[in-house]
Amino acid sequence: MKEKVVLAYSGGLDTTAIIPWLKENYDYEVICCCVDCGQEEELDGLEERAKLSGASKLYIEDIVDDFCDNYIVPCVKASAVYENKYLLGTSMARPGIAKKLVEIARKEGAVAICHGATGKGNDQIRFELGIKALAPDLKIIAPWRDDKWELQSRQDEIDYCKAHGIDLPFSADSSYSRDRNLWHISHEGLELEDPSVAPNYDHLLVLGNSPEKAPEEGEYVTMTFEAGVPTSLNGKKMKVSDIIRELNVLGGKHGIGIIDIVENRVVGMKSRGVYETPGGTILMEAHDQLEELILDRATMEVKKEMGNKLAQIVYEGKWFTPLREAVCAFIDVTQKYVTGEVKFKLYKGNIIKAGTTSKYSLYSESLASFTTGDLYDHHDAEGFITLFGLPLKVRAMKMQEVENNK
Amino acid sequence: MKEKVVLAYSGGLDTTAIIPWLKENYDYEVICCCVDCGQEEELDGLEERAKLSGASKLYIEDIVDDFCDNYIVPCVKASAVYENKYLLGTSMARPGIAKKLVEIARKEGAVAICHGATGKGNDQIRFELGIKALAPDLKIIAPWRDDKWELQSRQDEIDYCKAHGIDLPFSADSSYSRDRNLWHISHEGLELEDPSVAPNYDHLLVLGNSPEKAPEEGEYVTMTFEAGVPTSLNGKKMKVSDIIRELNVLGGKHGIGIIDIVENRVVGMKSRGVYETPGGTILMEAHDQLEELILDRATMEVKKEMGNKLAQIVYEGKWFTPLREAVCAFIDVTQKYVTGEVKFKLYKGNIIKAGTTSKYSLYSESLASFTTGDLYDHHDAEGFITLFGLPLKVRAMKMQEVENNK
Amino acid sequence: MKEKVVLAYSGGLDTTAIIPWLKENYDYEVICCCVDCGQEEELDGLEERAKLSGASKLYIEDIVDDFCDNYIVPCVKASAVYENKYLLGTSMARPGIAKKLVEIARKEGAVAICHGATGKGNDQIRFELGIKALAPDLKIIAPWRDDKWELQSRQDEIDYCKAHGIDLPFSADSSYSRDRNLWHISHEGLELEDPSVAPNYDHLLVLGNSPEKAPEEGEYVTMTFEAGVPTSLNGKKMKVSDIIRELNVLGGKHGIGIIDIVENRVVGMKSRGVYETPGGTILMEAHDQLEELILDRATMEVKKEMGNKLAQIVYEGKWFTPLREAVCAFIDVTQKYVTGEVKFKLYKGNIIKAGTTSKYSLYSESLASFTTGDLYDHHDAEGFITLFGLPLKVRAMKMQEVENNK
Amino acid sequence: MKEKVVLAYSGGLDTTAIIPWLKENYDYEVICCCVDCGQEEELDGLEERAKLSGASKLYIEDIVDDFCDNYIVPCVKASAVYENKYLLGTSMARPGIAKKLVEIARKEGAVAICHGATGKGNDQIRFELGIKALAPDLKIIAPWRDDKWELQSRQDEIDYCKAHGIDLPFSADSSYSRDRNLWHISHEGLELEDPSVAPNYDHLLVLGNSPEKAPEEGEYVTMTFEAGVPTSLNGKKMKVSDIIRELNVLGGKHGIGIIDIVENRVVGMKSRGVYETPGGTILMEAHDQLEELILDRATMEVKKEMGNKLAQIVYEGKWFTPLREAVCAFIDVTQKYVTGEVKFKLYKGNIIKAGTTSKYSLYSESLASFTTGDLYDHHDAEGFITLFGLPLKVRAMKMQEVENNK
Repeated sequence: MKEKVVLAYSGGLDTTAIIPWLKENYDYEVICCCVDCGQEEELDGLEERAKLSGASKLYIEDIVDDFCDNYIVPCVKASAVYENKYLLGTSMARPGIAKKLVEIARKEGAVAICHGATGKGNDQIRFELGIKALAPDLKIIAPWRDDKWELQSRQDEIDYCKAHGIDLPFSADSSYSRDRNLWHISHEGLELEDPSVAPNYDHLLVLGNSPEKAPEEGEYVTMTFEAGVPTSLNGKKMKVSDIIRELNVLGGKHGIGIIDIVENRVVGMKSRGVYETPGGTILMEAHDQLEELILDRATMEVKKEMGNKLAQIVYEGKWFTPLREAVCAFIDVTQKYVTGEVKFKLYKGNIIKAGTTSKYSLYSESLASFTTGDLYDHHDAEGFITLFGLPLKVRAMKMQEVENNK
Repeated sequence: MKEKVVLAYSGGLDTTAIIPWLKENYDYEVICCCVDCGQEEELDGLEERAKLSGASKLYIEDIVDDFCDNYIVPCVKASAVYENKYLLGTSMARPGIAKKLVEIARKEGAVAICHGATGKGNDQIRFELGIKALAPDLKIIAPWRDDKWELQSRQDEIDYCKAHGIDLPFSADSSYSRDRNLWHISHEGLELEDPSVAPNYDHLLVLGNSPEKAPEEGEYVTMTFEAGVPTSLNGKKMKVSDIIRELNVLGGKHGIGIIDIVENRVVGMKSRGVYETPGGTILMEAHDQLEELILDRATMEVKKEMGNKLAQIVYEGKWFTPLREAVCAFIDVTQKYVTGEVKFKLYKGNIIKAGTTSKYSLYSESLASFTTGDLYDHHDAEGFITLFGLPLKVRAMKMQEVENNK
Repeated sequence: MKEKVVLAYSGGLDTTAIIPWLKENYDYEVICCCVDCGQEEELDGLEERAKLSGASKLYIEDIVDDFCDNYIVPCVKASAVYENKYLLGTSMARPGIAKKLVEIARKEGAVAICHGATGKGNDQIRFELGIKALAPDLKIIAPWRDDKWELQSRQDEIDYCKAHGIDLPFSADSSYSRDRNLWHISHEGLELEDPSVAPNYDHLLVLGNSPEKAPEEGEYVTMTFEAGVPTSLNGKKMKVSDIIRELNVLGGKHGIGIIDIVENRVVGMKSRGVYETPGGTILMEAHDQLEELILDRATMEVKKEMGNKLAQIVYEGKWFTPLREAVCAFIDVTQKYVTGEVKFKLYKGNIIKAGTTSKYSLYSESLASFTTGDLYDHHDAEGFITLFGLPLKVRAMKMQEVENNK
Repeated sequence: MKEKVVLAYSGGLDTTAIIPWLKENYDYEVICCCVDCGQEEELDGLEERAKLSGASKLYIEDIVDDFCDNYIVPCVKASAVYENKYLLGTSMARPGIAKKLVEIARKEGAVAICHGATGKGNDQIRFELGIKALAPDLKIIAPWRDDKWELQSRQDEIDYCKAHGIDLPFSADSSYSRDRNLWHISHEGLELEDPSVAPNYDHLLVLGNSPEKAPEEGEYVTMTFEAGVPTSLNGKKMKVSDIIRELNVLGGKHGIGIIDIVENRVVGMKSRGVYETPGGTILMEAHDQLEELILDRATMEVKKEMGNKLAQIVYEGKWFTPLREAVCAFIDVTQKYVTGEVKFKLYKGNIIKAGTTSKYSLYSESLASFTTGDLYDHHDAEGFITLFGLPLKVRAMKMQEVENNK
């Protein structure tokens, strides 16, 4: 009996060509596994395709809710954003996929896992660190880095498939390189490879309009959170995945969440991409807006550092590590009272604040206003400033003294 | 001969009433000093007003270029933003004003400086820490915190002025509490005191349009930077103050840079305000955009922390401290090669990227693309991931071992 | 019926004089509360003393185990050290005391809490922030900052006591100002007030010998930890308080844990003190030694930052805050596998490592040695360095290119 | 004419065997370069040895003062310590050596640089990142990672040398693996490979005594610093290298600066070593002691973070990077006033403080003492605590309110 490999399979040209290649070069039985994180691909007929391509089995695994609850929500709570802009759409999905691949590998008694990520990107790292952390004994095969892989273009792959009896209708033209899931879609390649060139948004966008094509009329949206977790949209209780799905429609329509970034990959080079994260952008903004009312200054400050750390960790594929768990434990404590309602007006790329409320709000109208009261007497500021400025003043006096002694 | 006090004077009701109050309660000769940071106030006739109010002298000091070059530019270089949103407009101006007040006090041989900031805000701290650091021997008078100050309303102040022979046309109605300079205008009070209420932008905005009222047509703008400092706008070399002035017009027109925030004051409470920073928002975004091409990942990461620190320091009024100087020295090194051109399209509140170039760009199209080359062989990633993931894998193996030994 | 105040009472001169002062100036019924954190004071006869001094009741509350388990242990886990040296002995005790005072105040229906900390130290802040956080409605009385307090010296206090019929044998001589609990003893005052003078250790030390007076023979000590918590000493299971108690004897004997520091107080000035923390120093060192085997590099690095933050938070008296809780949640996750045994030799002020073991150790002899193996092939380092050094190399090439184009 | 390679050469067995290997496998002309960082090796006769081994030339380059002034001093200023203990002795030397190798390579017109560091250590990274940053065009050869290198033991190397006509007296026994320079000596291997075993100090130590073997009598030492740089020892002006040299003698004698550590290497595994840094330990402690008097609290706090960053950067071999330069610029500003004198007593492993003075000291005896004065009135603390504790109190009141509304 042959040893088994689990292949992360999408039904696209790359992962199709890998099936015969694995059989030919490793003599494995190939188990395909298509993990659905909300990429909205055509899954109908996928099983037939996989088998036609030589796989012995296809698993289609829907992890959308797992993705939302266990990967997206912790990052939203943390306001984790990579290099100020990237909402980690692809980064958050990879560990969830890796976990599912390991699960299938264990169930099938496979000895290896194979993925189709290239040798210059971040995803190879995220897949492989996930697998190493969960199943250090499993072999990992990355064809694009493998000496035995000789296919250099889409045409090569098509020819290779044909030569191995797989006759499926793939186009040899390459478009943008894209990755999509419930949270976002990323675009790389074509004109984006030159940072001096503006993206061709008319051609590029998949999830919605550009601000310029968005409707003339704005639209209000209301969200509630409980302990940092989104719980309802426009007054309707929903699970997180449904909230994101609906926000994607709204945000896409109004041109929200399109970013154009040159980012630093883990593997050491810069790359340029455009991300569409319509719903995610609204959700994170709403969460942050609510936190403004609830978190004290010191907590906000340290939480910002921890959110930046989490973004780095997730971007680097280190989800299944003690450090990621520790950071999330920190964040969870800060979220205990992040409960309340946020209202926004969406209008041509803008998220315009329209009121926030929380029973845990630390904002106090009487404290903020100019009057003196029970909690705070204007004279208190006198003592505060004396002590707050003391090190500064002592230092200035010392410098005067040194100067005078010259 | 009487001892002298230098009063930070604007010509408004508050600082006008302070003049007779200082004479009555402290028996000082009052030297007024109006420091111009670009607040676009009516300065004509100010000298007459000051004298009419009982001051013995008025200095009108234009520090706009000092403000731009020595306070704004370091913060732009650092991408210093307080609590994710506030571009520090008021915070950056205060130390510059304090410095000028101390200068005048020294010139006049004054023994004290007086400011009109309230006892619940941040500005009292910023003024006073500035003065303490530069002139620890000078007395500071803050009437609003002074037991002898008994005026509780605008009407009280008007009456007090009249009783002291000052008959100037002040309105008893209070509007928003505002602070304006070249970089921004802030608004507090009225409906803003309730965070559940959306700002009344039609009523509120001073520097430009809301996104909804902005023109249907977008507009391109090009900026160049040298070593992190803005040097030209739309192809024309200009000094920084002129760049900001012109960007304010453009940004204001297109609804850029309006933010609505609940922030944490130094004195311990939350307050809610709206800031308009049209030009500043464009300038900082352009600077950050350029940095994306030029800074390596590690530098970007630490610089972000330092930028956050600078924002805290500046917000807290600790400009004249060794820590602020040290942070700025760090930042300056990172800016050495932040030279290049950034192009944006401004459209209804959106800053849409339209191309960035720099001769120091670390972006390399051949490296970013999918091919293998001199600098990077796909196989290198293999070794990288092995070592990058080693701690994770060793840990997973150890855990398996402990598990098996149970 | 009179309103009640709970007084943090030690039986010393200061808190004795406060009893009649509170009755005279506030007309309160005074409930004394002596909180025992291991200060090894004479508690016999304390009740009689308190009553004789005019208190209506004395509570003696032993919180030693609470102090160890809920304040010391979290700080040991975090390796929390203030300004590189101070092991936070006093700082950790204050919130525990504040909590107990609030508890008694609630039980007695008191309206106020009174403490005897001075107006220039950190302890007033720690007591009061603790009380504010747990019972924001209670009034706080700090006689040393109170206008009605007129006693400026020990002799004044003795006279005041006598005048109010309290005739107890107090000495008018002042010695070092000290604070002691199970974890440490601090010394301030006398020759220590001049940082250019070496401490007079023969005179000063309370808990043990100086290194020079320590025995010629060293002594071994073995400790075990489970999940970061000390669980046994020299092979004997013990509760934490007993471990510290016994380590204090051992450490004191061998001259361990004496530090001489100029530290920055929260209230803005520097002060100089000597701390003896014999057992604590050994315990923290043992904990850190064990962590070296168990924590991965990334976790260690971030944990160090969090430990520093915790030290700041605790020093500032902000124990009962969301931030402190969040930091501790972070730390707790890192401690899950900090289990194992540490052996030290104590010798004349030195803690000499003598072997560490843990079943969760990530140290691998085969990996560390010079041979190639399954987990790591020397060639892997090639790829690692290529990618690790890529940003650096790309930058250097770009700089060469710019140079050449000049 | 053959292409040239510059070989980092020590005269030991490894780098001797590399000479014929380079000629055989790469057909290069081999230029040896022995960089002297104070390793106190036998340099007499080295030229003869190198030539005898087949090198065409030997450079002996003394960089001791460069090492002290440009690598050690910046790290001392920063208090840069890796993982709490390691004073970076080897890490700081590598970039200096790399720089010199590049200089010689340029002078000789060489096309490659070769070093003898192994494939599992940090030094390969430090050498290579240094070379990449300074000369990205040069090829780097690391025989231990090279497929053509087949020598697996000292005996193999000896045989290989003999087979190539090099007959030098090398021992086949391996001892500890050591690295020495002016700052420190490191030891790895033998019994140290098992962290449960105590080091055999009698066998191991090179630079001095263990505390137990140190003299019964302590000894005083005085150092002065100017702007963070050590300038004199025991009253005698000296250059830094001489200060370190003399402190090594003193520290070695008194058993100072021996540490036993399990550290995390950059390449992902833990290793265990013993470091002797007698002079360095005293110098850093003296510097830190002086800073206690001079730096304000906020500066100290951020400087600690920056020092930790610098330690990471240096440990990882990223000396020639913008981030390292930026961090050092930060540090330099903090050092401007770190001027003064520190006195220590050295005694059996202990550095006992014996007085510190500085004209820039921010310590003020009158401020620190218990009395009220001009700068600080006890009542000021009242207002300070009110504001400092305000967020905490507001939060507690809000929680009570929520609780009551349930």
